[in-house]
Amino acid sequence: MNINETIVALSTVPGAAAIAVVRLSGDDAIIIADKCFRSRFNKKLTDQSTHSVLLGDFYQKDTLLDEVLLSVFKNPNSYTGEDVVEISCHGSVYVQQQVLQTLQDLGARLAEPGEFTLRAFLNKKMDLAQAEAVADLIASESEAAHHIAVQHLRGGISSSLGELRERLLSFASLIELELDFSEEDVAFADRKQLSELISTIRETLKNLLDSFATGNAVKNGIPVALVGKPNAGKSSLLNALLDEEKALVSDIEGTTRDSIEDTLTIGGIQYRFIDTAGLRKTEDTVEAMGVKRTQEKMDSASIILYVVDPQTQTSTETVDALKSMHREDTTLLLVINKKDLLAKEIVEYYTKALVSLNVEKLVFATMYISTKNKADIDALKTHFSGQLQWNTGTALISNQRHWAALQAAMKSISEVAQGIEENRSSDLLAIDIRQTLHELGTITGEVTTDDILGNIFANFCIGK
Amino acid sequence: MNINETIVALSTVPGAAAIAVVRLSGDDAIIIADKCFRSRFNKKLTDQSTHSVLLGDFYQKDTLLDEVLLSVFKNPNSYTGEDVVEISCHGSVYVQQQVLQTLQDLGARLAEPGEFTLRAFLNKKMDLAQAEAVADLIASESEAAHHIAVQHLRGGISSSLGELRERLLSFASLIELELDFSEEDVAFADRKQLSELISTIRETLKNLLDSFATGNAVKNGIPVALVGKPNAGKSSLLNALLDEEKALVSDIEGTTRDSIEDTLTIGGIQYRFIDTAGLRKTEDTVEAMGVKRTQEKMDSASIILYVVDPQTQTSTETVDALKSMHREDTTLLLVINKKDLLAKEIVEYYTKALVSLNVEKLVFATMYISTKNKADIDALKTHFSGQLQWNTGTALISNQRHWAALQAAMKSISEVAQGIEENRSSDLLAIDIRQTLHELGTITGEVTTDDILGNIFANFCIGK
Repeated sequence: MNINETIVALSTVPGAAAIAVVRLSGDDAIIIADKCFRSRFNKKLTDQSTHSVLLGDFYQKDTLLDEVLLSVFKNPNSYTGEDVVEISCHGSVYVQQQVLQTLQDLGARLAEPGEFTLRAFLNKKMDLAQAEAVADLIASESEAAHHIAVQHLRGGISSSLGELRERLLSFASLIELELDFSEEDVAFADRKQLSELISTIRETLKNLLDSFATGNAVKNGIPVALVGKPNAGKSSLLNALLDEEKALVSDIEGTTRDSIEDTLTIGGIQYRFIDTAGLRKTEDTVEAMGVKRTQEKMDSASIILYVVDPQTQTSTETVDALKSMHREDTTLLLVINKKDLLAKEIVEYYTKALVSLNVEKLVFATMYISTKNKADIDALKTHFSGQLQWNTGTALISNQRHWAALQAAMKSISEVAQGIEENRSSDLLAIDIRQTLHELGTITGEVTTDDILGNIFANFCIGK
Repeated sequence: MNINETIVALSTVPGAAAIAVVRLSGDDAIIIADKCFRSRFNKKLTDQSTHSVLLGDFYQKDTLLDEVLLSVFKNPNSYTGEDVVEISCHGSVYVQQQVLQTLQDLGARLAEPGEFTLRAFLNKKMDLAQAEAVADLIASESEAAHHIAVQHLRGGISSSLGELRERLLSFASLIELELDFSEEDVAFADRKQLSELISTIRETLKNLLDSFATGNAVKNGIPVALVGKPNAGKSSLLNALLDEEKALVSDIEGTTRDSIEDTLTIGGIQYRFIDTAGLRKTEDTVEAMGVKRTQEKMDSASIILYVVDPQTQTSTETVDALKSMHREDTTLLLVINKKDLLAKEIVEYYTKALVSLNVEKLVFATMYISTKNKADIDALKTHFSGQLQWNTGTALISNQRHWAALQAAMKSISEVAQGIEENRSSDLLAIDIRQTLHELGTITGEVTTDDILGNIFANFCIGK
C-alpha cells in the first residue's frame, strides 16, 4: 500500500438511491477531479477555497456522465489531513461504477479498506483508539454501542491514558538518568511520587479492565437464551418481545431488519436471542438434568428466560430445571406463561409450591405473564434494562485489543510497583516502566507496527 | 402532501457504510439544522454563504450523536430551489435513524417518494420530462440506458418539443383572433406557413414515436430467449456469456450482482435472458411444432438463440424448429454447439444439409461454437451488439407516458393538417391545435394534473 498515491472509493452503501458519494484523497485529488469536472459557472477547481461546493458536470472522456455536486477540502482541513474531494453524484449503479472507473483512469487508485482513516491516523488527525472508534461507530446499532463509540471517538480513553503515560514517561527519563550515575547511588526519580503515580495508573487500568465485561456486552449485544418445554410459549414470547421493536423500527423509513432478525433493543442496549429452536428434541432431557449442547448454549447466555406452562409442568420439575441452569454470572428469570388460561387458584397454588421449594434463591425474578398482555411484556422488559450501567460518563473498554494491551500494561506496572517495594535497581525498574509505556502506547498508536495497523484497518469498510 | 413544510429524508442507500447523507429542504431547513448542529469553530449556520460546508457536532437534545459535515445551499441555488441542508454523517444505521428522528422532532416531515424532485419541478428548476429523467438516470444500469436518461435530463426532447409548441401556440392565437372577425372572412394565420410548421411537427413526432421501440428496449433491456433441446448446451452457453460480464463487474468494488443475475451488457446495452429452464419437459414438442407457452415466451423475445447439438439432432429437425420460431421482428441466431467434439466431416455435412434446406432464409446467422472458446463467444456477442443504434445524438423516447402523449399529439395534429387541406373553418382548426398544444404540454409539464404528478413521483425513491 503506497500512501503517497491518491485514493478513491465509494463511501456510501452500494446500490441505487437518490445520491451516492465518491471520495478522493491525496496530493492529486483536486488535479484529478479537475480533469473530469466542468463547473457550471466556469469556476476553476484549483481556485476553490476549502469547504466549498460546486455544481457541475462530470465527464468520462467526452461523454457527459452526470450532473454532480463537488466538495473541496484542502490539506490539512479534511478528514484525512490530505486534499479531499467528495463527489456527490446521482445514485445510479452505472454512474457510480463509471465515476470510480474514470477517476482510476485519471490516476487515482482504489482505496484499501479503512485507508482514509489510516491516513487520518498517520497524519495525526486522530489517534489509533479514535480510528478504531470510527469503525465501531459505523457498526453501532444500539444507543449504548453508539454511546461507547462516540466516547472513544472523542478521545475518551486516549486523553486519560495519554496523560498518565506522559507522566510515567518523565519518570522513565529520570530513572534512566540514574543509570548514568549508577556508581554514585543517586535517585533523581522520587520513589514516593513514582509509587503514587503507579497506584493511580493501576487504579485507572483496573477500572478500564473491569469495564470490559460491560463494554463488550454492549458492543456485541447481550446474549439471551429462551428456554422451556415445547409449547411453553417461547416463540410467542419472543414474537411479543420483538413485535414491539419491529413497530418501533418500521416508523423510520428505509431501515432493513434483515441483519437483526433476532435482536431486541431495550433501554439502548441490544439483546441477542440465542437460537434454542434446534434443541427441541433434547429439551425434555434438559428438564431432567441438562444436555451438554444445551448447556453450552446457555453457558454463553448472560440472561436466561425460563418459560413454563404450569398446566403441563409441575413446580418440582420447574425448580429442578432451574437448579440445573443456575449460575452466578447469569441472570435467571422464571417466566410463568399463559396467565390468561390459568384459574386464580392454580396461580396461588403454584406460587406457594415454588416458594416452598426456595425458588427465590435460584432466580432473579418470577413473573406471571400472558404474551397477549402488553403490560406483562413491558414488565418483563424492565428486568432486562437496568442490569447494565453503560451511560456513566466514564469511558468503557469495548475493544479486545485494548483489553489485551491494558492487561499487559497492568502486568508490567505491577512489576514496577513490586520493584519499588523490593527496592530493585534502576535498570530493572526502567525495563518494566518502558514495557508499560509500550503497552499503553499501542492503544493510542504512539507505538505501532504494520501488523497492528493491518489488523485494525482490514476490518474497516472500503470508503472509510 | 403540504409542499410548504420542510422535508427530510435519507438520500443514500440505507445500511452501514463510511458515510450517509440526510437531506433537508424547505423554508425552515437551515433553522432546523441550526438547532441540532454546533459548528467546530462557532460559525453560525444562518450566516453561512450558499454552497459552503461546515464541520461540527450533531446533537440529539443534549447527547452528542455524531461528528458531521453540513452543506448549505440557499434558495434558489439548490436542487429543489428551496433552502437545502445536506448532512453527511457516519454511515451507522443507528446514527442515520437518530439523525432522521431528531430532524423530525425539530419540525421537519419525512419526504414523500420523489418529493425533492417534485419541488424542483414546481419551482421550475426542471421540467417534467427532466424530472422523469432523474428517476431513469438513477435506475440506469447500462451505458445506453444511462445515455438516454442524461439526454432527457439535459432537456433533450424538452427543447425541441418546446420550441415547436411555442411556434404552434402563436398560430393558435392568430387563428383564435380570426374567430373575432369571423364575419369578415380574414385569415391572420398564413395557411402555408402553418402547413409547413405542421409537417415539421409531424416529422418530429414521427421520429420520436419511431424511436420508442429502441428507447424502450434500451431502457428495459432487450429480451433474449435461449432455446434448444436438453443437453444442447444452453446453460453452459449462458454461463460463458455471463462469466465474461461477471468478471467485468467484479473489477469494480462494492457492486452487487443480485438484481441483475440473468442480464448481460454488451456494447452498452442490457440483454435480459428469458428463463426457458422451466420449459424443459415440453421442449421436445417444441422441436416438432411449438407449445403454446414456449411460443408466448419466445414471442416476447427480440433475439432467439437456438442452440443445437448436431450429435443428437438432425438438420431436418433443426430447420423445422427454426421454421416454427421464425418471425419478422425477431432476430433468430442458430448456434451449433460442441464444435470441439465434432469431426470436421460432420461439420461439413451438417452445413451442406442446412444449406440445402435453405436455412439462411430463416436465420440471421449460423455459428459453430464451443462454449470453452473465448473467441467463439466473442463472435457470438458481435451479433448482439450493433443491432440497435442508440448513440445517435438525437433524443430517443423511452417513457411510456411520453409515447402516449406523442401518439395523441400526432392524432390531433393530423386532424389539423386534414382541416387545412379541407379548408375547415378557423374554430374547428383552433380546437385541434389546442388539443395538440395540450398533449405536447403534458410531456414537459406545462399542462399537468395532480394525477399525472402523483403517478410520476410515486415511482421515485424516497430521498430524491
